[in-house]
Amino acid sequence: MAVLPVSDTIAAIATPPGTGGIGIIRISGPLAPAIMQKLFRPARPRSTFESHKLYYGTITDPDGRVLDEILAVHMRAPHTYTREDVVELHSHGSYLVLQSVLAAVLACGARPAEPGEFTKRAFLAGRIDLTRAEAVIDLLKARTSDGIQLAVHQLQGELYARVERIRQGLVAILAVIEVAIDFPDEDVEILDIPQLREQLHQEVEEPLARLLAEADRGRILREGVKVVIAGRPNVGKSSLLNALLREDRALVTAVPGTTRDTIEEVVSIHGVPVFLVDTAGIREHADQVEELGIERARSKFKEADLILFMVDASRGMEAEDQALYESIAGKERIIVLNKIDVAARKDVELLEERFAGEEIVWMSAREGRGLDILEERMYRRFLGGDDRLQEQLACAPNLRHRLILEQTARACTRLRQALELAAPPDLLAVEVQAALDYLGDIVGITTPDDVLDTIFSSFCIGK
Amino acid sequence: MAVLPVSDTIAAIATPPGTGGIGIIRISGPLAPAIMQKLFRPARPRSTFESHKLYYGTITDPDGRVLDEILAVHMRAPHTYTREDVVELHSHGSYLVLQSVLAAVLACGARPAEPGEFTKRAFLAGRIDLTRAEAVIDLLKARTSDGIQLAVHQLQGELYARVERIRQGLVAILAVIEVAIDFPDEDVEILDIPQLREQLHQEVEEPLARLLAEADRGRILREGVKVVIAGRPNVGKSSLLNALLREDRALVTAVPGTTRDTIEEVVSIHGVPVFLVDTAGIREHADQVEELGIERARSKFKEADLILFMVDASRGMEAEDQALYESIAGKERIIVLNKIDVAARKDVELLEERFAGEEIVWMSAREGRGLDILEERMYRRFLGGDDRLQEQLACAPNLRHRLILEQTARACTRLRQALELAAPPDLLAVEVQAALDYLGDIVGITTPDDVLDTIFSSFCIGK
Repeated sequence: MAVLPVSDTIAAIATPPGTGGIGIIRISGPLAPAIMQKLFRPARPRSTFESHKLYYGTITDPDGRVLDEILAVHMRAPHTYTREDVVELHSHGSYLVLQSVLAAVLACGARPAEPGEFTKRAFLAGRIDLTRAEAVIDLLKARTSDGIQLAVHQLQGELYARVERIRQGLVAILAVIEVAIDFPDEDVEILDIPQLREQLHQEVEEPLARLLAEADRGRILREGVKVVIAGRPNVGKSSLLNALLREDRALVTAVPGTTRDTIEEVVSIHGVPVFLVDTAGIREHADQVEELGIERARSKFKEADLILFMVDASRGMEAEDQALYESIAGKERIIVLNKIDVAARKDVELLEERFAGEEIVWMSAREGRGLDILEERMYRRFLGGDDRLQEQLACAPNLRHRLILEQTARACTRLRQALELAAPPDLLAVEVQAALDYLGDIVGITTPDDVLDTIFSSFCIGK
Repeated sequence: MAVLPVSDTIAAIATPPGTGGIGIIRISGPLAPAIMQKLFRPARPRSTFESHKLYYGTITDPDGRVLDEILAVHMRAPHTYTREDVVELHSHGSYLVLQSVLAAVLACGARPAEPGEFTKRAFLAGRIDLTRAEAVIDLLKARTSDGIQLAVHQLQGELYARVERIRQGLVAILAVIEVAIDFPDEDVEILDIPQLREQLHQEVEEPLARLLAEADRGRILREGVKVVIAGRPNVGKSSLLNALLREDRALVTAVPGTTRDTIEEVVSIHGVPVFLVDTAGIREHADQVEELGIERARSKFKEADLILFMVDASRGMEAEDQALYESIAGKERIIVLNKIDVAARKDVELLEERFAGEEIVWMSAREGRGLDILEERMYRRFLGGDDRLQEQLACAPNLRHRLILEQTARACTRLRQALELAAPPDLLAVEVQAALDYLGDIVGITTPDDVLDTIFSSFCIGK
């Protein structure tokens, strides 16, 4: 990774698009102070501005035409987000006002910032490592408060610290091995193999395994899971959907970006974002009612992390239920036996027999009975335990991290095997170095430029 | 208007909803500093914060759980937007993060701000008069850069200053009249009627008339005009629409809030927001093609500030053209004779004769010919002159202002009549006082509470 000297000045609207009370133009780079001097007229004339202090005045275009009344602040390098000189112009939150202020700033020599470029500069300047930069995206994209918590932990350097501890463990092992390489002719056997293996286990393999376990759970908390509600018409799918939506609706519909064509609703179940797909509409849209209906449902099932297979307990398994049930063979599922309030005892027993070995939840979606149990079971399926996450998950490696952690773990396995075979120190060193390089990619020490580009391009502009 | 002591603390998300780099929670009121002390942990521990200075640190909920890394600033009263203690928390611009920070702030004793409440407090505290408060809304709603300019002028007190000068003129006249009331038995005739009339004319009536003239133009610049393109099918309405849209599209579609059901597009013609309504779709949707089509078009014509009546010059006036033309009788219109590139000379002459006395623009919408002339003519129709606005319009009274200015003008007319009849000073004083009271309503000195409520409730929350 080449850290190039950054010499140009970037600017962007940093607040969300739309109309609000306040909008911010952020400028970073060597020209920032001069741009502020040129365009900002403080209400009480002055020629210098204290760092990090908000001043009230007007912002003009380069011709001196007043564009708005604003608060302006110059944050002097290096105590800024990017470690460069940063200027923020806080204007009224009208998109048009912000656009004209931005245009004035660009006319003074700044260029429009790329997505994530402010954060990229913070990373390139060494203010934050790559995991903390990535946490910024996670934070912006988090859909539940647990997701926010994970992102904040990562932003505060939790993942960085844990990866760094593992790296230090490997560095310590490498140091021992290098002594053996440097003094190959010593009489005493320098390498204490059992000790090295113990060290590898305690300081590297164990913490790696814990991080990997958290990665799976982190993905679920960050990205959520897709749950498809399956069942033939009138088993109560829409009632169940509505019951699941009952409380979290306000929270979840406030988050933009839900794809409306396939995903119906998103709720938070104990902090896990759950995308609920109701297959109720499938049948009506099909031409060949039976065939196509099942075909369409099956394509939804493919994307599902979990299927809630609903049966009307008061009517038992009919041919259509059976056909649907066969189409979910091999998928993660919970059998939801609905309408328990009107089902006959005999039917209940028959169904329990029919679904022996499956996870079954009895409920009355209409009356809201059984809902808590269903949510608890869903949660356990997602995260494999009934302990609440906030007590367990301090950080959540993402997919990129996980792939690297897996590569690191494989290098460690090779190292362990080489130790067991008492391989020559040079060979041992190669594996340790490989593991170290992998970990360097996580925090950004050795990350290739194209990976960096991919990461930062997923940011919004102005961040 | 009762100025009540404001003692509670309000808080709101001040940036637009959605995801962006930065989001702001704004808090105003006596509890603001204590809330910052409780929830904000500066990166370098400290117990006091300099006013208006941004500090880096973390924000927590009342239980100490970290919600985000932020910049926080305490702006000490009275040098703030509301003249109260104001705290701003600049967090990451995720709606969910902002919501959880706001929830933490509310848990510490602030209450959610009403729409416009920050600005209302600025007004109640006497920091800004009512016209400047209203300018904040205008600024947020402005659709063109000229609209922004007008709002900024008003925000900077242009309208206030002009109204205030008129008020001072009235106060001076009142002072003279009151001397006459106080000393009714003086020998000399105290009231110099011609002098008073001259004073009334110069210092009150003239400036009032100028403001009223600007109100009409201001409305047009602020709110825009509705232009309906009328004509039978295939005369080229859609080509004209597309030609008018050619350049300003990016500017105008960026502004949200366009009502899609009736208004088709909005363009800026020399700074005037023009809502273009294409009646092309009318015919297809009608059941009784001919009758209903014209009926629907007629209802669009009703709302129009200007109708562009298009005729296919290559075919001349047909029966359908004639029927449509009759339906726009009495409306503001420009006759657009299209397809000049393929029209025969004879037809051109016939049409000129047919529309003698009307404003005619010849054009080829397909080739873009005549478009500049049409835009120029439209602009003149809207604003009654060919001089650019920025040279003329320093402020733009809105409808509320205009109605009050008209009432003031009527009181002045009564005063003038009373002066001419040499009415007793008491009667004169009544009219002067009436005019003064009206003007007081504009700037907010005497504005009734319900009017204030109406004004501020049209703000967004957080402003």
